[in-house]
Amino acid sequence: MRHLAEAVTISEQKKFALAIVLIEIFCVIIHGCVADYDNDTDLPDNAARYPMWQDINVMIFVGFGFLMTFLRTYQFSAVGYTFVIGAISFQLYPIWEAIWKCAFDLDSPFKIHYNTLTLMTSSFCAGAILITFGGIIGKVSCFQMAVCTFFETIGFTLNERISINMGVADIGGSMVIHTYGAVFGLILAKILIPRSAFCHKKAESNYFSDLTSFIGTIFLYMYWPSFNAGPATPGSQAQNRAYINTMLSLSASCMVAFLISLLTRSEDKKFNMIDIQNATLAGGVAMGTCANMNILPVWAILIGALAGVVSTLGFSKLQSFLESKIGLHDTCGIMNLHCMPGILGGIWGAIAASKASSRGDNAAQLLEVYPKSSLSDWSQSKQGGIQVAFLFITIGIAFGSALFTGFMMKLLGNTPTQLFEDGESYHIPRIRFEDPEEIINKIP
Amino acid sequence: MRHLAEAVTISEQKKFALAIVLIEIFCVIIHGCVADYDNDTDLPDNAARYPMWQDINVMIFVGFGFLMTFLRTYQFSAVGYTFVIGAISFQLYPIWEAIWKCAFDLDSPFKIHYNTLTLMTSSFCAGAILITFGGIIGKVSCFQMAVCTFFETIGFTLNERISINMGVADIGGSMVIHTYGAVFGLILAKILIPRSAFCHKKAESNYFSDLTSFIGTIFLYMYWPSFNAGPATPGSQAQNRAYINTMLSLSASCMVAFLISLLTRSEDKKFNMIDIQNATLAGGVAMGTCANMNILPVWAILIGALAGVVSTLGFSKLQSFLESKIGLHDTCGIMNLHCMPGILGGIWGAIAASKASSRGDNAAQLLEVYPKSSLSDWSQSKQGGIQVAFLFITIGIAFGSALFTGFMMKLLGNTPTQLFEDGESYHIPRIRFEDPEEIINKIP
Amino acid sequence: MRHLAEAVTISEQKKFALAIVLIEIFCVIIHGCVADYDNDTDLPDNAARYPMWQDINVMIFVGFGFLMTFLRTYQFSAVGYTFVIGAISFQLYPIWEAIWKCAFDLDSPFKIHYNTLTLMTSSFCAGAILITFGGIIGKVSCFQMAVCTFFETIGFTLNERISINMGVADIGGSMVIHTYGAVFGLILAKILIPRSAFCHKKAESNYFSDLTSFIGTIFLYMYWPSFNAGPATPGSQAQNRAYINTMLSLSASCMVAFLISLLTRSEDKKFNMIDIQNATLAGGVAMGTCANMNILPVWAILIGALAGVVSTLGFSKLQSFLESKIGLHDTCGIMNLHCMPGILGGIWGAIAASKASSRGDNAAQLLEVYPKSSLSDWSQSKQGGIQVAFLFITIGIAFGSALFTGFMMKLLGNTPTQLFEDGESYHIPRIRFEDPEEIINKIP
Repeated sequence: MRHLAEAVTISEQKKFALAIVLIEIFCVIIHGCVADYDNDTDLPDNAARYPMWQDINVMIFVGFGFLMTFLRTYQFSAVGYTFVIGAISFQLYPIWEAIWKCAFDLDSPFKIHYNTLTLMTSSFCAGAILITFGGIIGKVSCFQMAVCTFFETIGFTLNERISINMGVADIGGSMVIHTYGAVFGLILAKILIPRSAFCHKKAESNYFSDLTSFIGTIFLYMYWPSFNAGPATPGSQAQNRAYINTMLSLSASCMVAFLISLLTRSEDKKFNMIDIQNATLAGGVAMGTCANMNILPVWAILIGALAGVVSTLGFSKLQSFLESKIGLHDTCGIMNLHCMPGILGGIWGAIAASKASSRGDNAAQLLEVYPKSSLSDWSQSKQGGIQVAFLFITIGIAFGSALFTGFMMKLLGNTPTQLFEDGESYHIPRIRFEDPEEIINKIP
Repeated sequence: MRHLAEAVTISEQKKFALAIVLIEIFCVIIHGCVADYDNDTDLPDNAARYPMWQDINVMIFVGFGFLMTFLRTYQFSAVGYTFVIGAISFQLYPIWEAIWKCAFDLDSPFKIHYNTLTLMTSSFCAGAILITFGGIIGKVSCFQMAVCTFFETIGFTLNERISINMGVADIGGSMVIHTYGAVFGLILAKILIPRSAFCHKKAESNYFSDLTSFIGTIFLYMYWPSFNAGPATPGSQAQNRAYINTMLSLSASCMVAFLISLLTRSEDKKFNMIDIQNATLAGGVAMGTCANMNILPVWAILIGALAGVVSTLGFSKLQSFLESKIGLHDTCGIMNLHCMPGILGGIWGAIAASKASSRGDNAAQLLEVYPKSSLSDWSQSKQGGIQVAFLFITIGIAFGSALFTGFMMKLLGNTPTQLFEDGESYHIPRIRFEDPEEIINKIP
Repeated sequence: MRHLAEAVTISEQKKFALAIVLIEIFCVIIHGCVADYDNDTDLPDNAARYPMWQDINVMIFVGFGFLMTFLRTYQFSAVGYTFVIGAISFQLYPIWEAIWKCAFDLDSPFKIHYNTLTLMTSSFCAGAILITFGGIIGKVSCFQMAVCTFFETIGFTLNERISINMGVADIGGSMVIHTYGAVFGLILAKILIPRSAFCHKKAESNYFSDLTSFIGTIFLYMYWPSFNAGPATPGSQAQNRAYINTMLSLSASCMVAFLISLLTRSEDKKFNMIDIQNATLAGGVAMGTCANMNILPVWAILIGALAGVVSTLGFSKLQSFLESKIGLHDTCGIMNLHCMPGILGGIWGAIAASKASSRGDNAAQLLEVYPKSSLSDWSQSKQGGIQVAFLFITIGIAFGSALFTGFMMKLLGNTPTQLFEDGESYHIPRIRFEDPEEIINKIP
């Protein structure tokens, strides 16, 4: 029995190696045929975007990576897989993005033109995949994650292309990134995860891993204004609003997460690090659609506060309910941090869009936020309708592409033998501290 | 007795929850009435300030937060309270800033106009409060910190408004931020801290917590040039000088801190991590007033080196003296890192200002540093006098506002039952390593 | 015997203190005589370089510092010495740079004019020294590192000055930084390191130190595009290419390092954290010379992938071979991460340069990359020859200056009594977890 299990394990690693080889060959061929630098880019704008891309990049690799290190025996995997998934999506995203662009507009040539905006949207794509990863981390093999990354980039770029063609306003991706990634991950969690994962004794933190996880939290918190303002035209008023709204929304969700954590963690009426690590960030997710809109600072605070309430209640109440009643095991709580606040963000975006010009933005300022506002038949209420429609499209595409991806992951790969355990795929150093009980048990 | 203690503890958490609710309602009402985006901001300058604000933001949340994690059983609280205090001050600062502006100039409308400079000065305000926190961390309840945050933002903004009206040059806040925050914290430490805190066995580091604390040190060190150059006009020569002076000053204080640590830690003639974590940064504090002045690079090195000497001697000699003789328990040594170098910085600023134009700055360059230099009766020596006067004003306002705040903290709140212990307010994971002696004690 | 050992230890610390005093006096005198702010700098360019310098600075202090914390009982030293070595080189670099500039052009005045480019090149110099440090960390005393820093800055600036005079294209320093620093460090490792270091039981990681090391990896990875694009003219197409090429190269070396780690770590067919922490970065090193050249994105991917293969094979196979057969103990594997990928980078740079204009760069774009391309007798093939010649010059100067420096380190200093042990020079907190076996051994 044990022998068989090891055979399966080795096999997953070999498949992962093969997947990497195939993906890299695919990327090299496509890049060789169609990729070049963007020689027509507006160079000052391009350079101005660079520091914001770097901030977003920190959110992806440090933020998401370390946030997931709360799993005390899965810290190497959390940062390691974040690293390699991010690297893969940097090469795959521009390819699928270019393919869909061609597919939707057959006159457009199949070309990848690299500039800093390409790097930024590649980071966004990596973000969506890492959100998905948050739902299934510790419960799928490295090979299964590679399969997921390959197919999810296809779905992500399709959905993003539709949003561009529809003229959707979603600057920080409440819908495109958070809702898509989270719905995708929740579907995978539902269809892939074995019962043995539930209440697993290793699916928990220790004092050290809670602190390293907080490194992720704090870098996500700090740089979220760049996430929501990054795609805006550098130096525009819309960009300034995106900074301000996001920061205010985050500060409100941070305060509220501390508050609700204290009130609803019934066991001991103390702050729970799970809430502090995650729900504090809900304001950034919820501001992803309307960050650059003229919504007034007070609404940024209120939206952030409400997202903080919903998210903290999700972590303290909903998560265990879903696990026991629906059979949904969501490792990092992406339902609470990304799905619900993301959908709320989409709804608020629709409401704000339908009242867009009421505060006196001029035509140029409107155009910066709503790419279709220069059309003659554009109206605020129509934009609101587009936003709502796209929210449903996002959920639909996420649903469909996740079902297909989950099927492929099940067909091609195998669930790991040991859940939430680095030793499954990583060489572990001789000295490890995850369980002093091991030492205590040796005491006669 | 134990029951009573627990009752008190719970009560502090409830009071904290109430405080958060009241502060958030207050912030929402004021923001709803008077806050808007700054539609008249110079957008290119506004965008140019953004990356520097982000650097400063990292200093606040990662720098201060992790620097204080050296307390081996108070790491959650160090980063958690830093987080929520920072969030609160982001909403409170703009309110009080706008109120004092109105109060000092009754013709000026009561308006909050958000731009990146607002975010930057909010971060500075959070910095001052976190310096204060450094003096009392581990020894006050979460509710007491909320009370402190509320009142200290009032005093901070008053002092800052006076500095603006007086035309004080204090770009990186040797006086406004470091001296104010540190004097405030030392007063609170003196009047609030019980004898039981002295020589407390948990007020110490372990190997792991010393390393996480160093994460804070190094981010503070790296981004300090942004702290001292942030408010300067983007692209000005004064900004260039602020980068250079701060970096040189820091490199000198870093070298000197290693040197003096070796020479004065009499017990073992080895580097002491307390000095390395803290005194290395004294050059940044001491350069806070004169960073943008035309002082010549060599003076930046000399000022940094002297600040490093003073600060390291403070940690290795003065701190235990203050604790045993004056009864002042200063957890993080804010006397040594912020108070003394801050006052030195204020004095050096006064000296440099009184010799301002001697190196041939033209009128525009002078105006960038000294906002009143365009007035006909302005002179260098007058500016020097203003700087000295404001140093005393800062200490006076810090003294007065801290006495009042300390009184309120004592009246409304209670000292924690367990000092330097996360378990007081945070849910602690089952596995914790703070004391292998616990395991050793179990060995028969 | 034990008494003698302690006497030696103390003596190294005293010599370190003396070295710091002498270096600081030297720096103050030279700065006092010749240093000023660069009043003629192009201020917008200067400000535009600042965020990229900050990224590079993070790579130096967080990246290199934390990467080396994998040594489980040498973490304080890894971050501490990185810190002080960085600080020293910030003051020494501008001095030697100015001296060599004068020496090579006697008409040029001996002046240090500080701007952000000075800070950036100082960071690069610190980078080279820290690469060297990676080869000898844990095996030399603090005083020996100070000696090394002093002499290596001289050799580094000489080599850099030659590269400028020759018109070498080496924007991210595959040759000037990585090859120079690595060859220097390998020579020192060969001539200084005692046999007792080989297979030392403390020259290894634990679970915690592997994770803190990964903090270094990830910050190096994220900010490497700034490292390779930093010296480019802000907003130029060459800068855009440098971002893109570096990011693509890194993502390829990351994927390949995971792949080869799995295939070549024969013992368990699992990912090895040493490869993940280091070889993933080889793409950044290898792109150091040709990052800003018009090489096409697909070549960036291919170069990164090849560098990843070479580097991972270096870690998994070559390193133990060198240790056992050649007697070369290379603590961090600088042969694999810096020397081989750096030399490859130099070679690829030469090849790319010899084909420079073939993709239609205009004269201005060529001049941005090749400073001598405006000369009438310049040709692509000539540039290729210059590049190859300089690669040999770099290795030669590194060889010679390292031999001299190693001789001085041996003459003046002493090998530490305890290798890979913080307790040698740092005060260690009472609680330390490096070896639970100590506890287990106490169990009767």
